[in-house]
Amino acid sequence: MSLFGFFNKRSTAPAARERLQVLLAHERATIGQSDLVAVLREEILAVIAKHVAIDRDKVKVKMERGDVVSTLEVDIELPDLAATKSFAAAH
Amino acid sequence: MSLFGFFNKRSTAPAARERLQVLLAHERATIGQSDLVAVLREEILAVIAKHVAIDRDKVKVKMERGDVVSTLEVDIELPDLAATKSFAAAH
Repeated sequence: MSLFGFFNKRSTAPAARERLQVLLAHERATIGQSDLVAVLREEILAVIAKHVAIDRDKVKVKMERGDVVSTLEVDIELPDLAATKSFAAAH
Repeated sequence: MSLFGFFNKRSTAPAARERLQVLLAHERATIGQSDLVAVLREEILAVIAKHVAIDRDKVKVKMERGDVVSTLEVDIELPDLAATKSFAAAH
């Protein structure tokens, strides 16, 4: 199953929502070594916020740290970009 | 299946590799509307490159654009961060 399928799970909300999901996984060669995912988290959110208005209440962040693999899952419900003049004009 | 499992597929290389995977999915409320994934792609790679030395030959990028969902998959083989003084010192 390509991950395309994973993201294709239609949101349960009746009207389609504008949604952005970000997944990061850092697989370390050396156990116990520092965590790239935690380092990148805020900067990636800042890059996204440069392009779309993000309502912090609509951002779900989940981080998991294993011995070898750390993951970051971010799920952002976005304002309808088509209706957002600034995004449409800028892109 | 949590995506944690997806990333846990151990790399086939005998020695563990240092690896970073990034997945982005933009689910649009309006079909045909511009693509956040394409807009974010270079800036997210730039954020990563600020923290780790990236060999462009070791970066695999795959983008898929559907009517409703566009995805970006980036798979980066990293130098062993534990052996990279600059990363260890900075983080």
